[in-house]
Amino acid sequence: MNVKILNGPNLALLGRRETEIYGRRSLDEIMETVRADAAALGINVECFQSDEEGVLVGEIGRSADRFDALVINPAAYTHTSIALRDAIRGCGLPCVEVHLSNIHARESFRRESVTAPVCIGQIAGFGEDVYRLALEALRRTVRQDKEAAS
Amino acid sequence: MNVKILNGPNLALLGRRETEIYGRRSLDEIMETVRADAAALGINVECFQSDEEGVLVGEIGRSADRFDALVINPAAYTHTSIALRDAIRGCGLPCVEVHLSNIHARESFRRESVTAPVCIGQIAGFGEDVYRLALEALRRTVRQDKEAAS
Amino acid sequence: MNVKILNGPNLALLGRRETEIYGRRSLDEIMETVRADAAALGINVECFQSDEEGVLVGEIGRSADRFDALVINPAAYTHTSIALRDAIRGCGLPCVEVHLSNIHARESFRRESVTAPVCIGQIAGFGEDVYRLALEALRRTVRQDKEAAS
Amino acid sequence: MNVKILNGPNLALLGRRETEIYGRRSLDEIMETVRADAAALGINVECFQSDEEGVLVGEIGRSADRFDALVINPAAYTHTSIALRDAIRGCGLPCVEVHLSNIHARESFRRESVTAPVCIGQIAGFGEDVYRLALEALRRTVRQDKEAAS
Amino acid sequence: MNVKILNGPNLALLGRRETEIYGRRSLDEIMETVRADAAALGINVECFQSDEEGVLVGEIGRSADRFDALVINPAAYTHTSIALRDAIRGCGLPCVEVHLSNIHARESFRRESVTAPVCIGQIAGFGEDVYRLALEALRRTVRQDKEAAS
Amino acid sequence: MNVKILNGPNLALLGRRETEIYGRRSLDEIMETVRADAAALGINVECFQSDEEGVLVGEIGRSADRFDALVINPAAYTHTSIALRDAIRGCGLPCVEVHLSNIHARESFRRESVTAPVCIGQIAGFGEDVYRLALEALRRTVRQDKEAAS
Amino acid sequence: MNVKILNGPNLALLGRRETEIYGRRSLDEIMETVRADAAALGINVECFQSDEEGVLVGEIGRSADRFDALVINPAAYTHTSIALRDAIRGCGLPCVEVHLSNIHARESFRRESVTAPVCIGQIAGFGEDVYRLALEALRRTVRQDKEAAS
Amino acid sequence: MNVKILNGPNLALLGRRETEIYGRRSLDEIMETVRADAAALGINVECFQSDEEGVLVGEIGRSADRFDALVINPAAYTHTSIALRDAIRGCGLPCVEVHLSNIHARESFRRESVTAPVCIGQIAGFGEDVYRLALEALRRTVRQDKEAAS
Amino acid sequence: MNVKILNGPNLALLGRRETEIYGRRSLDEIMETVRADAAALGINVECFQSDEEGVLVGEIGRSADRFDALVINPAAYTHTSIALRDAIRGCGLPCVEVHLSNIHARESFRRESVTAPVCIGQIAGFGEDVYRLALEALRRTVRQDKEAAS
Amino acid sequence: MNVKILNGPNLALLGRRETEIYGRRSLDEIMETVRADAAALGINVECFQSDEEGVLVGEIGRSADRFDALVINPAAYTHTSIALRDAIRGCGLPCVEVHLSNIHARESFRRESVTAPVCIGQIAGFGEDVYRLALEALRRTVRQDKEAAS
Amino acid sequence: MNVKILNGPNLALLGRRETEIYGRRSLDEIMETVRADAAALGINVECFQSDEEGVLVGEIGRSADRFDALVINPAAYTHTSIALRDAIRGCGLPCVEVHLSNIHARESFRRESVTAPVCIGQIAGFGEDVYRLALEALRRTVRQDKEAAS
Amino acid sequence: MNVKILNGPNLALLGRRETEIYGRRSLDEIMETVRADAAALGINVECFQSDEEGVLVGEIGRSADRFDALVINPAAYTHTSIALRDAIRGCGLPCVEVHLSNIHARESFRRESVTAPVCIGQIAGFGEDVYRLALEALRRTVRQDKEAAS
Repeated sequence: MNVKILNGPNLALLGRRETEIYGRRSLDEIMETVRADAAALGINVECFQSDEEGVLVGEIGRSADRFDALVINPAAYTHTSIALRDAIRGCGLPCVEVHLSNIHARESFRRESVTAPVCIGQIAGFGEDVYRLALEALRRTVRQDKEAAS
Repeated sequence: MNVKILNGPNLALLGRRETEIYGRRSLDEIMETVRADAAALGINVECFQSDEEGVLVGEIGRSADRFDALVINPAAYTHTSIALRDAIRGCGLPCVEVHLSNIHARESFRRESVTAPVCIGQIAGFGEDVYRLALEALRRTVRQDKEAAS
Repeated sequence: MNVKILNGPNLALLGRRETEIYGRRSLDEIMETVRADAAALGINVECFQSDEEGVLVGEIGRSADRFDALVINPAAYTHTSIALRDAIRGCGLPCVEVHLSNIHARESFRRESVTAPVCIGQIAGFGEDVYRLALEALRRTVRQDKEAAS
Repeated sequence: MNVKILNGPNLALLGRRETEIYGRRSLDEIMETVRADAAALGINVECFQSDEEGVLVGEIGRSADRFDALVINPAAYTHTSIALRDAIRGCGLPCVEVHLSNIHARESFRRESVTAPVCIGQIAGFGEDVYRLALEALRRTVRQDKEAAS
Repeated sequence: MNVKILNGPNLALLGRRETEIYGRRSLDEIMETVRADAAALGINVECFQSDEEGVLVGEIGRSADRFDALVINPAAYTHTSIALRDAIRGCGLPCVEVHLSNIHARESFRRESVTAPVCIGQIAGFGEDVYRLALEALRRTVRQDKEAAS
Repeated sequence: MNVKILNGPNLALLGRRETEIYGRRSLDEIMETVRADAAALGINVECFQSDEEGVLVGEIGRSADRFDALVINPAAYTHTSIALRDAIRGCGLPCVEVHLSNIHARESFRRESVTAPVCIGQIAGFGEDVYRLALEALRRTVRQDKEAAS
Repeated sequence: MNVKILNGPNLALLGRRETEIYGRRSLDEIMETVRADAAALGINVECFQSDEEGVLVGEIGRSADRFDALVINPAAYTHTSIALRDAIRGCGLPCVEVHLSNIHARESFRRESVTAPVCIGQIAGFGEDVYRLALEALRRTVRQDKEAAS
Repeated sequence: MNVKILNGPNLALLGRRETEIYGRRSLDEIMETVRADAAALGINVECFQSDEEGVLVGEIGRSADRFDALVINPAAYTHTSIALRDAIRGCGLPCVEVHLSNIHARESFRRESVTAPVCIGQIAGFGEDVYRLALEALRRTVRQDKEAAS
Repeated sequence: MNVKILNGPNLALLGRRETEIYGRRSLDEIMETVRADAAALGINVECFQSDEEGVLVGEIGRSADRFDALVINPAAYTHTSIALRDAIRGCGLPCVEVHLSNIHARESFRRESVTAPVCIGQIAGFGEDVYRLALEALRRTVRQDKEAAS
Repeated sequence: MNVKILNGPNLALLGRRETEIYGRRSLDEIMETVRADAAALGINVECFQSDEEGVLVGEIGRSADRFDALVINPAAYTHTSIALRDAIRGCGLPCVEVHLSNIHARESFRRESVTAPVCIGQIAGFGEDVYRLALEALRRTVRQDKEAAS
Repeated sequence: MNVKILNGPNLALLGRRETEIYGRRSLDEIMETVRADAAALGINVECFQSDEEGVLVGEIGRSADRFDALVINPAAYTHTSIALRDAIRGCGLPCVEVHLSNIHARESFRRESVTAPVCIGQIAGFGEDVYRLALEALRRTVRQDKEAAS
Repeated sequence: MNVKILNGPNLALLGRRETEIYGRRSLDEIMETVRADAAALGINVECFQSDEEGVLVGEIGRSADRFDALVINPAAYTHTSIALRDAIRGCGLPCVEVHLSNIHARESFRRESVTAPVCIGQIAGFGEDVYRLALEALRRTVRQDKEAAS
């Protein structure tokens, strides 16, 4: 199974700013661990980060033919980006939305996700573990879909 | 680690009604699998189901001294029960909220959770896998807390 | 045809309190009349009352295999109980929602019903007659369904 | 007892359009059945249909002295017509509001009735049976009023 | 004067959890003090606690004939329970609503009380003193009512 | 000065229904008095009533060339009729909106007027006197406009 | 008949600022004309202006025993002052609310009046004529009240 | 292809009032041009105007069997008429909604259309050209539908 | 303990207007009783009334150094005065908000208090007893604070 | 006449994804047809697509001096982009907003356009025909503007 | 240039209460510094403080002829006072609104200013520096206006 | 002190479009003046403009280690960009938000700033002077912070 992992705005700062909250690990280090975890699950992952909504949209559009599923941390765009929502729905891949923090416990404007309704599920609040949990969730879902299709 | 798993209203009907949506497995069968998965993770789980909000509230209150963490599927009470919210916060245990379906993709009144703000995270949308994912998420969180405390 | 009639919170007080509004007849007396009216229509009814949301939820779940239809007066739970809504939808039986008073003419919070969207219809405002009217409405609906199915 | 039955906009199309939903019976055929049902109940009915809000308002005003009660299916005007509300209240007759479909299960703008608060009750969701149910409900109510007045 | 004191969900945890906020006294100890204070005021009190909305509703219904007044701390049900509201109004007894904390200074969803409009007054924010203050308030109110009635 | 007076839905019932509220005078009698009052002010009035929104719209459209000003009591259409608003603005005549009752003291949906923003003013709450007051108000306004224009 | 006329904040600036809108006449000049108009109607008026909400409240309180009616132009306080509302209701005198401009055609926050619901009526939009119109409206109302009382 | 063009309230005033905004052409002249444009496109059009909501509703109902498509300019009824919405849906014909002005750039209450959701599209803001554009849009749509059906 | 009691707008009318609701006792008489009750509790009180928001604000500011606590009945300013809220918070004294009537059972705009969030508690609905209850509540609170501080 | 056609996010996927809804034609093929249609109308068009809001903003800014008009399909940015709105207004060119689907019939968040208020009109719901219709609409508008200016 | 500086409710407490937040400088000391800063800019300032809305309104009215500009810190009245808004607009002077704290980062009810829309600008969040910054801003604005007028 | 000045979408058009509103000076010319003003204050500034939200986000992220403070004119992104808000908070630098126009006096959607709550203050409405005022405001703030830290 090939999975594209997309990370949204400000996540490139991980490990460098607000380390007391988000820890001292950079996004590269986290993705390195995710890649290893994925390999152990027999999943091949490709990671991508952009601060730009439209670049993420374009990347999702180009992923449709090359991947089996998406994991996305839309960060701040979670709450406003109809363009990402349309991109996820349009590409037709199963997608899991993840958030490092429990967005349901933060400011009220962070409690509604524009993108979650077009995902198969959402995992929020367990730090960098959310990527691994998403891959585990995807593994079973995609396998079931293939079985159902065969 | 000892974990209490709480299931809310109508979940006793799993496997008997709307099987085309929720599958043919009963709550007992699902909990049996969860118990096995938990054992493999070195976690001891105790399962509880009630259709009654107040009974769930009371059970949470009594869990505080006997468990290390909670997993709760509040079902319909997710969206209205301030009493469950107060119970979770009051008992002081780390709690993960789970939902079989992706509540963010359903009716608008199912998109806001009253209880999630007092949990450490929420996992929604992967069928019965959400229980296992919650246990995995808890395992690391609780271990980190213990390390931080020691 | 077997019909389960469910009565919600505070209805056990009928005939004892606020008699100038709700009349001097107790719920038992009213149900007695309903049972007689039902018999005349060739319907067998079983009546149940509980002040507790979860108990009503459980009772509905257990009714699925033993009845052909439901009549429910959810009283105060009409306006808040997603759990009852899920129970009615989950049990798969045709259900008629009834209210002794015209809830559309009362406080604004009584004007929206959470449960009505999963019922086949709603009858409000004719005192204890609403039970008999509901049974008549059910009789034809269920008969048509059976004809359509045969 | 003399009852005026008023039918609002688009109801003249019954039986000719969207027959898969509303059936193949025309409003005239339905009213014919209602008239027969009414006769069996000892009620004399007069039927009226108009697509025009103001014409319905005028008809209600002229009904005050000639009828004992009203049954109204305001159709689309249910949700917006303060003029019909004022007409019903102004004419002083007991009125039952009926709807062929369960308006509480449709678009959100169909869930609030402007006219129901000035009626004695509302019956929604049982197809053309709602007219007969309304007459039965009226029969007892009007009889009780007369007894109370005598 | 006989007064029924009702305590709602999670209050059984008083003195055991979140003691830094709510103090080290259990509900039993607090009720013991209230009973003594009441005796000094010539009032006989009976205390009741339940986590279950419907059980509280039933208890209020059964109190109507045996008590002169109610004091209720509906806790989390304050903000959602139309059933408790109907029970208080239905039982016909004067009722005082109390809250240990100043609910007007907490989360916005705790600022509106569904039950207060059917009480004679509300006292919030003085810890366990609110029970004694409620009894003092009731004593004069009930006495005045009796004088007015005699 | 020639003034068209328009009366909206249900006003034809004046003097016949709800006489304890609106008095025993019919619309014709009231208009007769208004006509006399107008004559004393040197104003010629023409009165029109319709229950139908579109008929009122058409009448306003035809008034543009034959009158100097309008007085309108839109009754129930006050709160919903964008068509009347467009008609008043479109005809270009100064218009005074009147209401027999103080609409600001009634149900909340009667407190906002869709038509008042395109009138020169609104007079509400003095029974049938509002017509005479409107004519007096118009007399000075129109005179000033003519002076300004000359 | 003795009438107290109260003018609210910023009205002392009339005739000195924004003269292109409000004209070149000062409040004193306008009140002089009103006094003359009133005399012609057999009404004795006393005029009062204050920019201060509380001073207007106090003045209304002191007017109860010395006047038969009030005319108030609450200006900016119209939309926010519950204190003025309570004062008008508390003093028990019939009161007419007036506005120089058509507040219904201005910013949305000027379209709702907090004070109008406790007045007998509202007149808005005819410049300084509103005072004279209010006196005429009061004259008949008060006369009718006296006749009804005698 | 036969197309019915319906024009709503106040449109009969075109060319006579507010000519600086809407131009000097009457509705008849505009419809004459539309008829010529239609002929050039091989479309036969029939035009209808009414200020009355119910008359438009009735006309749509009667169009179902005689036309292939509708073009409607509902004018002020666009924003409030559920009856027109039901009529358009009920008649089953493809319908294009047109507006002379760009309603999305006007008062906020003109920005939502009640009728557009049951049309195949909306064209707003190009003056009388909207009728011709609607016919062109219909021509291709209807042709495609026929091809798909054949 | 020295306590400043502040009374807001219209309270000077107590005993003179609406006596059927608020009783025949003037504010001076009530304060006299409060002073006596306070003395019995060992509390020295100073009473102040103003109809003016700003005067109350100033008085609170000047109270900070001379009193141990405040009791305030903000009357109509309860629902709008951010200035009073800032004054109470700014002066740093514990404050109890009181209301003669149960504001939670009145018009919806009286149900939210702007000032209560900066008070230690609120007592509403027991007539003039609220002042005495507030003093009793303060006595224990202040004593506990002093003990905690010592 | 030179017209710039701008296409927003996800439109590059046309013809490749969700072809059952949007057809099998790519954006390039559609634009090719539009270019041909434009040539037949004597219009020269230049097409541009970007998934990025800011890139579209910049392109609009650079179009001001080189084109006579704009056609924009803002896709998902329609509903959120104040930046596009400012760009369209700022560039000063007449602009037509187009949508392939009838956005008024989709999710509620797609029904309001942030950009339409600064366009001359909007065309929605006719598939790729909307581009041609927009060019036709522009042709006449721009010609009229030039005539008015000359 | 002569500038009037107005300070609203509770600002007289500066330096005496909540000094950890607002610092130890009194309003007089701050105004002294402002006066010196102003002199350095060639501006003559006059300072005024009142806790009373109406007194501030009156002071603004009297400033129109004696000053070139206003600086106002409306404090708590910022969010509610339509009277201050009318006064600022009515006096016709350019006005700058200032706030010591960043009101946009505080409670939601402090984020909207009723008065800012009639000011030329707003400066918030830099402590007592806001007065000096406002004077600098005014200096250039007023100079430009004079140049434009000459 | 080193300050990064960030300018958002459409600001590159300054001086070229809508010059009657925004003046004839280009952003480069304005920044040139700001740079000179800054030098006079002993501040070194670096200016950056982008129409793209994500590019601004990235630039802020890269500024954290090289600057002492930020000045940002987020233009249209002010009202929607949670990503910019997160970037400003994440970078940890003191930031001043500026707007050329008084956004509080414009369309309602421009009155709330998503980014201001994470800035130290906001300056709006004085044209290009806002940049200089922001630098002056920052100078004192940063100096105080350094003093507090030392």
